[in-house]
Amino acid sequence: MNTTVKEKEILRGGQFLVKETHCDDVFTPEDFTEEQNMMKEAVIEFNDREIIAHRERFEKKDFAFTEACMRKAGDLGFLSVAVPEEYGGLGMGFVSTMLVCDYISSGTGSFSTAFGAHTGIGTMPITLYGTEEQKQKYVPRLASGEWFGAYCLTEPGAGSDANSGKTTAELTADGKHYKINGQKMWISNAGFCKLFIVFARIENDKNITGFIVENDPANGITLGEEEHKLGIRASSTRQVFFNDCMVPVENMLAGRGEGFKIAMNALNVGRIKLAAACLDSQRRITTHAVKYATERKQFNTPIADFGAIISKLAEMATSAYAGESASYRAAKNIEDRIEMRVAAGNSHQEAELKGVEEYAIECSILKVAVSEDVQNCADEGIQIFGGMGFSEETPMEAAWRDARIARIYEGTNEINRMLSVGMLVKKAMKGHVDLLSPAMKVQEELMGIPSFDIPDYSELFAEEKEMIAKLKKVFLMVAGAAVQKFGPDLDQHQQLLLAASNILIEIYLAESAVLRTEKNAKRFGEDSQKEQIAMAKLYLFNAVEIIKKNGMEGIISFAEGDEQKMMLMGLKRFTKYNNYPNVVELRNTIAEKVKAENKYCF
Amino acid sequence: MNTTVKEKEILRGGQFLVKETHCDDVFTPEDFTEEQNMMKEAVIEFNDREIIAHRERFEKKDFAFTEACMRKAGDLGFLSVAVPEEYGGLGMGFVSTMLVCDYISSGTGSFSTAFGAHTGIGTMPITLYGTEEQKQKYVPRLASGEWFGAYCLTEPGAGSDANSGKTTAELTADGKHYKINGQKMWISNAGFCKLFIVFARIENDKNITGFIVENDPANGITLGEEEHKLGIRASSTRQVFFNDCMVPVENMLAGRGEGFKIAMNALNVGRIKLAAACLDSQRRITTHAVKYATERKQFNTPIADFGAIISKLAEMATSAYAGESASYRAAKNIEDRIEMRVAAGNSHQEAELKGVEEYAIECSILKVAVSEDVQNCADEGIQIFGGMGFSEETPMEAAWRDARIARIYEGTNEINRMLSVGMLVKKAMKGHVDLLSPAMKVQEELMGIPSFDIPDYSELFAEEKEMIAKLKKVFLMVAGAAVQKFGPDLDQHQQLLLAASNILIEIYLAESAVLRTEKNAKRFGEDSQKEQIAMAKLYLFNAVEIIKKNGMEGIISFAEGDEQKMMLMGLKRFTKYNNYPNVVELRNTIAEKVKAENKYCF
Ligand SMILES: Cc1cc2nc3c(=O)[nH]c(=O)nc-3n(C[C@H](O)[C@H](O)[C@H](O)COP(=O)(O)OP(=O)(O)OC[C@H]3O[C@@H](n4cnc5c(N)ncnc54)[C@H](O)[C@@H]3O)c2cc1C
Ligand SMILES: Cc1cc2nc3c(=O)[nH]c(=O)nc-3n(C[C@H](O)[C@H](O)[C@H](O)COP(=O)(O)OP(=O)(O)OC[C@H]3O[C@@H](n4cnc5c(N)ncnc54)[C@H](O)[C@@H]3O)c2cc1C
Repeated sequence: MNTTVKEKEILRGGQFLVKETHCDDVFTPEDFTEEQNMMKEAVIEFNDREIIAHRERFEKKDFAFTEACMRKAGDLGFLSVAVPEEYGGLGMGFVSTMLVCDYISSGTGSFSTAFGAHTGIGTMPITLYGTEEQKQKYVPRLASGEWFGAYCLTEPGAGSDANSGKTTAELTADGKHYKINGQKMWISNAGFCKLFIVFARIENDKNITGFIVENDPANGITLGEEEHKLGIRASSTRQVFFNDCMVPVENMLAGRGEGFKIAMNALNVGRIKLAAACLDSQRRITTHAVKYATERKQFNTPIADFGAIISKLAEMATSAYAGESASYRAAKNIEDRIEMRVAAGNSHQEAELKGVEEYAIECSILKVAVSEDVQNCADEGIQIFGGMGFSEETPMEAAWRDARIARIYEGTNEINRMLSVGMLVKKAMKGHVDLLSPAMKVQEELMGIPSFDIPDYSELFAEEKEMIAKLKKVFLMVAGAAVQKFGPDLDQHQQLLLAASNILIEIYLAESAVLRTEKNAKRFGEDSQKEQIAMAKLYLFNAVEIIKKNGMEGIISFAEGDEQKMMLMGLKRFTKYNNYPNVVELRNTIAEKVKAENKYCF
Repeated sequence: MNTTVKEKEILRGGQFLVKETHCDDVFTPEDFTEEQNMMKEAVIEFNDREIIAHRERFEKKDFAFTEACMRKAGDLGFLSVAVPEEYGGLGMGFVSTMLVCDYISSGTGSFSTAFGAHTGIGTMPITLYGTEEQKQKYVPRLASGEWFGAYCLTEPGAGSDANSGKTTAELTADGKHYKINGQKMWISNAGFCKLFIVFARIENDKNITGFIVENDPANGITLGEEEHKLGIRASSTRQVFFNDCMVPVENMLAGRGEGFKIAMNALNVGRIKLAAACLDSQRRITTHAVKYATERKQFNTPIADFGAIISKLAEMATSAYAGESASYRAAKNIEDRIEMRVAAGNSHQEAELKGVEEYAIECSILKVAVSEDVQNCADEGIQIFGGMGFSEETPMEAAWRDARIARIYEGTNEINRMLSVGMLVKKAMKGHVDLLSPAMKVQEELMGIPSFDIPDYSELFAEEKEMIAKLKKVFLMVAGAAVQKFGPDLDQHQQLLLAASNILIEIYLAESAVLRTEKNAKRFGEDSQKEQIAMAKLYLFNAVEIIKKNGMEGIISFAEGDEQKMMLMGLKRFTKYNNYPNVVELRNTIAEKVKAENKYCF
């Protein structure tokens, strides 16, 4: 589409915080091309037919069935969406990749994890960092599903601290091989993969190195038993042991000591795709829940008519809507940035790498937000089903169990929360995002006398957009003061970082929901967006409450006396509505629609 | 102890909201008698040896093992704590009953449910409502564990709406039997019980009737298969079918049409005991988590030293502490009230019935609060364990799954939330709790000019106690205005009721934590209570935030214009600290202690 997008036009990663984004500049799910919509339908059909129809097999730990589904997905081309055409892939853009990941992932976390591990961390390190020979040799097989891939980073002693692994790679005397020794843990797809991306340390290198390792039991590779897990029961998860495993030197990925960078970049892509992988779950859970709630009667009333249930349905739909809005917004930013770089002469590989890296902050934000939203959504789903929600006969309990992993892998949510703020501060230091001048402006504003004029709010979202601008000030005020106070030691104040990241996350999601809705209201008419408008408002209201709490916590934990007073005053001013929304009415509006359509319908 | 307690001295149910309670008037776990402490030790020892040591058997659905543990618990007298001596029980008071339920329930939700269903809803209806003959015949067998009991209220079409069951009881022509027909669902202990409490409808009675039914397959009773459930895997849960099951007329419980009352009263006791049953889980989860966190190193640091984990450990301990404080406070109120009535000449049976009924509001509050706390606690437990938390090898995932049921049974948390406020309003209408005059005072105060003097806060908890008094005003303001506005239609405004109940719950828990700590600080010295003081303050801070949010939601959903402005102003005034606590420091203080002791130690 926009192959001529200019660098300056695209918001850089993290800049959403300091720039106002125009609604025409965000991509929304309503902007899917015809091709994308066809892809979406095909994936939904596959998911319904091959996965959801056999849901119980996954719960019974039918690992072979997961593999068979992966094979079928390969036959249909779904494993190759992101793979360039020259390596047998469909070479579709980042948005399409997200879309497939989104709609293919909702049947069960077991398949979703197998799919994510294979197409993401199992394949991407080669497409992003491989040599031409490596790509020629391996990528077509992975793209077609002839081979499956797995990713061996974690070790018993090295989880969040991924660079601390003890697995070693030793160059053989003839200089032709590396001999790998070590123990990897929690390896998804281990049970049926043909290829491992393995990270190991050469000598006393500071950083680990990545290798492509073919799975061959005769070559010193043994697997542990399947782990018994809370959820994603039919996702193969095993330990992998390397005993003098010989890997040809030409199978090293990128350069020596570049493994940590590879690992982290693979995780960036992994994170935003994981967010996508939680979206359709939310939609389907909401749909199941509303169908049950309109049928189930207690006290001679469909439970869907009780305020308690209305509230749940509305919040479930709203969080799914906001998650979609933010995920596709970021996805398109990434896609545009890749295209921009390609247009500027970068190789596709280089462009993709840099494109995703640029939005690492958004990737972390999305990973945290959407993984928690799907957990809450499934939790409310269970509750709506009452006792039946606790039964394996309904799909709620598996959805709840499966959702739990998304908060742990691809970097725990704690790590991602701290990363999001940490990376932003780093970007500011490097001058990539100017936080300082807006932060200083906020400081000045705090000293000044606030205007008591009530602006004209007649336009759609006028007050909401003003509120979002104010919420950004809250972040700048809190984070700015914290940076001033603690300087480079800030990262040792984790509770503060966590509070700041909660603010950041809510701003991104709320803004994305508002912008998407504004864009759609402009083109399709406000009337057509009545419930979406209600969702954007409801999301924002909830976001404001979260931001109040986290802002408060931050401020009172590092500021005292007059400074504290001033900042609390600022917090109050920046989180105050002139016209509070009637949240009960908003929820009623949203739930009415979901009930009338008897499904998630946005 | 206080057999001469006078009626006027004991706070009535719900009155905590309008009366100030002196710290000397609350019972705390530190007030356990020597006998109670011995009982506690014995139960802990039993739990460790018989249950926790065999944790994996429960996860493997070893129903027979659950039954065997119940049998052993019976041999040691643990099933008979609450049963009067004349029926073979230990005849201990309500606090002791709670204590046993607390410490016996943390090994697994499977045993906990079996224990709760048998001693609570399986036995209590007979001890509370049975005739002398019924008690003589059945209670000793239940108390000893010779027989186990189950409770058949729920039906496929009658869950929350328990009185709508379709099971029928038809008097036979000779007038000697009732013939029971119908289908009951979700019956805990069904697989191994000898006795059912069954609720059925006679003719077209408005209310159902309770019966004692011996389990006899030859008498038209058949069981469904074991349900496959998310958690409490070795708790037997089956459907029970009654086909022309003949029950002697003398097995009717209380009078015809009194079943609904029995069911509800049994649930009151069940609710507070369910809260107790979640407490030791929280303690044990916290202990497991801190042990793991001090051992597990990442980035060359025990993860327990990271702020993100410190925060979790502190919040986990705090919610357990507050839950304990509130549960035992209410338990002793109930016990005192029972003793008071016995002293006044009531039969023990009558006294117990009325005693528990009096505190039905507190029972609902506790059920909701503690069941949600244990869920959060287990959730954070998983997160602290990282990937290992997702593995069946560690006890976190089962704790998380098992906790989920507590929010569904004994009345869903939605139902209990609405009940808590609904019952309070009813009590006010009946004049049992005077809400009106304090609510009017709050209204006056809202009109007046607030004092800007800063009081003397030098005494321990001076500001916290003032805050609690203010939070009560928030409730009175919001609920008062809502009652005025909607009158008897209030119960159709569920979202408002839910917001009000969230306020009510937090007040009760926060006040209980503060009073317990104050009492202990007075007698044991403030120095000895440093961390408890921090927990009480932290709990209150969190409570204030929840109350702000819920108060806001309530106000903006039914008040407009000037009324809204005034109430929002009130909300602000009533939730403002003069000195905000440094929550990060509070959490650090609490976590330091938990880490030093390497366990939950309060
Ligand atoms: C089902 C499953 C599938 C997986 N699949 C794969 C796979 O395919 N390939 C692979 O390589 N790995 C995989 N993993 C591993 C996963 O990425 C790790 O579990 C995750 O990174 C967390 O590491 P950990 O389990 O060692 O937890 P830890 O790192 O030990 O973390 C424990 C706790 O400490 C916190 N913590 C750690 N460091 C810090 C810090 N600096 N500051 C604050 N808090 C901190 C964490 O947030 C967490 O709460 C999988 C895991 C599971 C459970
Ligand atoms: C493992 C397990 C063990 C159990 N053990 C027993 C037992 O031993 N004996 C027994 O009799 N029962 C037992 N139960 C049944 C249990 O008490 C019911 O599941 C519970 O009361 C909820 O009823 P329900 O499942 O029919 O849900 P429903 O009543 O259908 O509720 C579904 C949803 O609607 C909401 N809802 C319902 N009515 C209203 C309303 N008026 N306003 C707002 N929201 C409403 C509920 O909160 C819930 O979110 C057990 C259940 C389970 C799962």
